Amino acid sequence: MPTVPLIEIEDAPPEVRAVYDDIMATRGVDWINNFWKALANHPQLLAETWSRLKQVMGPGALDPLTKEMIYVAVSIANGCDYCIASHTAAARAKGMGEAAHGELIAVVGLAAQLNRVVQAYRVPVDDVFQGPPTS
Amino acid sequence: MPTVPLIEIEDAPPEVRAVYDDIMATRGVDWINNFWKALANHPQLLAETWSRLKQVMGPGALDPLTKEMIYVAVSIANGCDYCIASHTAAARAKGMGEAAHGELIAVVGLAAQLNRVVQAYRVPVDDVFQGPPTS
Amino acid sequence: MPTVPLIEIEDAPPEVRAVYDDIMATRGVDWINNFWKALANHPQLLAETWSRLKQVMGPGALDPLTKEMIYVAVSIANGCDYCIASHTAAARAKGMGEAAHGELIAVVGLAAQLNRVVQAYRVPVDDVFQGPPTS
Amino acid sequence: MPTVPLIEIEDAPPEVRAVYDDIMATRGVDWINNFWKALANHPQLLAETWSRLKQVMGPGALDPLTKEMIYVAVSIANGCDYCIASHTAAARAKGMGEAAHGELIAVVGLAAQLNRVVQAYRVPVDDVFQGPPTS
Amino acid sequence: MPTVPLIEIEDAPPEVRAVYDDIMATRGVDWINNFWKALANHPQLLAETWSRLKQVMGPGALDPLTKEMIYVAVSIANGCDYCIASHTAAARAKGMGEAAHGELIAVVGLAAQLNRVVQAYRVPVDDVFQGPPTS
Amino acid sequence: MPTVPLIEIEDAPPEVRAVYDDIMATRGVDWINNFWKALANHPQLLAETWSRLKQVMGPGALDPLTKEMIYVAVSIANGCDYCIASHTAAARAKGMGEAAHGELIAVVGLAAQLNRVVQAYRVPVDDVFQGPPTS
Repeated sequence: MPTVPLIEIEDAPPEVRAVYDDIMATRGVDWINNFWKALANHPQLLAETWSRLKQVMGPGALDPLTKEMIYVAVSIANGCDYCIASHTAAARAKGMGEAAHGELIAVVGLAAQLNRVVQAYRVPVDDVFQGPPTS
Repeated sequence: MPTVPLIEIEDAPPEVRAVYDDIMATRGVDWINNFWKALANHPQLLAETWSRLKQVMGPGALDPLTKEMIYVAVSIANGCDYCIASHTAAARAKGMGEAAHGELIAVVGLAAQLNRVVQAYRVPVDDVFQGPPTS
Repeated sequence: MPTVPLIEIEDAPPEVRAVYDDIMATRGVDWINNFWKALANHPQLLAETWSRLKQVMGPGALDPLTKEMIYVAVSIANGCDYCIASHTAAARAKGMGEAAHGELIAVVGLAAQLNRVVQAYRVPVDDVFQGPPTS
Repeated sequence: MPTVPLIEIEDAPPEVRAVYDDIMATRGVDWINNFWKALANHPQLLAETWSRLKQVMGPGALDPLTKEMIYVAVSIANGCDYCIASHTAAARAKGMGEAAHGELIAVVGLAAQLNRVVQAYRVPVDDVFQGPPTS
Repeated sequence: MPTVPLIEIEDAPPEVRAVYDDIMATRGVDWINNFWKALANHPQLLAETWSRLKQVMGPGALDPLTKEMIYVAVSIANGCDYCIASHTAAARAKGMGEAAHGELIAVVGLAAQLNRVVQAYRVPVDDVFQGPPTS
Repeated sequence: MPTVPLIEIEDAPPEVRAVYDDIMATRGVDWINNFWKALANHPQLLAETWSRLKQVMGPGALDPLTKEMIYVAVSIANGCDYCIASHTAAARAKGMGEAAHGELIAVVGLAAQLNRVVQAYRVPVDDVFQGPPTS
């Protein structure tokens, strides 16, 4: 059980309901997932988080599916079970197939392994990798 | 300084030199970065790691640039400084521009934040997110 | 289910019972939570942990509520579900209200995000932040 | 060296300079620390991050010093060296004394230890810790 | 529920069944645990992972029980609940007694605490600890 | 540079000097490494930490070398650079050879990888792995 009550749509105060309505309209669904119902206990955090999420995860130099897969990768690296469940579903809804899912997991696993191997050896950064690209 | 000596190309025993040669040939360069020079202290781990990296990071359902950006994202989430330096350089070499780099960091940061917010609230997984997609 | 049996009060050997009694007396309750029942499988670790926890979490330069909120923050950052549940309850028992809980989560989330953004950019430490304060 | 150029005050484009000016005015200083100079490569992320930081870390149900110590605690738990250096300095500037610093570190260390001990034993959450407080 | 279907023995395609048969033969059991049934959705990852696990965890300079306890320690440090449950059982099957289990957890907890204390103080590495041993 | 002054042997107040003397006598050396010089800013934390470290890392059901390797493994998993440097040196001083070091790193890397793969698939714990051993 969560550490705060989940605010259902019908119980939402106006400023929360406004965010819920925008979430449902943006996603074209008629339900709200539990993350937002928990965050709704702190309306300012709810509103700020939803508007940032829309902006950060929307189309840009990277497409929404690539961003969603990066989000899943970080959630796996941080071991957030809810986040893995919800964003893996979101990535599939945006077109991630089973082969892509398997490759995503293979890359995350390889990086998790080699991140630690590098740290175990205390590998010094090569000069060629130092600093930003020179133009 | 590293916890093991860095094995330079000219000092590499045959089984290590063979891996170094394949790394340089595959990348079209004439140098080896420090990670491999450290790993070379354990030739079996070196050979196995390089062959897996080639296979996992190569073209598949996901393209090499997408895989490289996922690798960078996991390295950031795990706080591996060497890995961030080397794979950010690799992603740029594969075509990641500055706008894409900024969006990658924004997505990693948002996921890092919300992973913890979700755990703080102990949000229960919605039924709709449970289990694999039914076909 | 836990990886060790939970030692109930009525089954506790004398050296474990003595710690249980001190926990209940200190807290003014007549029950023991599962963490201690698991730790009781290793009585020395149980006794040492309880005495340290009493000393570290007690009043000092920081008050017990501030310490409890710091404990919750670390538990969120480490993704320890049991710890989040038990120490959020403890912080509330010590006076953390809903607004404070929301702000705690907002700070933890912001730090989790910016910790990773800083590492992604490999930001060098400013000279002004180097070393202890000079008096 | 950082993965992006550090944008100095004199080289800042107008939208970056406006944020720099607000940072300096808010803090009553005439310099900008490296974190912001790196973030300035992505002006939208810079502006959004600064405005959120001002709001989240400002006075509320929790005072700014308590929030700063929570930020330091999370930065330690995440092993972000730059963040530890800069926010420990900020906490001292807001009044954290050496005794409080020692207690903060002791609480973070105890939590880091017990978070893992709890997970090692797979301790089930007690019913009394389940869910939000009932009013 | 998992994010992929669990492939049961009777439903396994030939290349998966071959790995399952080797797992059961190597372990002298007639069942497969859920990790492999999930990994079986990506047969190449399954085969590669099993063959690496056999090689890495087998006898060498370190005995299999020591390797299994190191695996448990890392799983605790990473907070992987399934891994803690399965590898604690594996370590017991290889001879880890209750006293050893308690000491393993005590060492992991101490390291988790002191790792963070060291980072909190930003302790510089002593010259004597720099670099590999000189022979 | 550290966040606190390093307390040198000649500057140590009596209660700190007593711990320094015990560290040097126990180890048979005439110097103190930086970790203790930082911790000495908080004498109670110094004394408590040293006495616990002696007890936890000493001989028991597990030998000191095995405990030291477990400590190194956790330090790698947590990415604590100082801890990796100092405890790798300590493990070598206790007899860890290069082959053992390589195998230790291989096990840590494999666990780091599979911990995340397991979490990515949200693998349910098998009944056979549930709970403590029944006697």
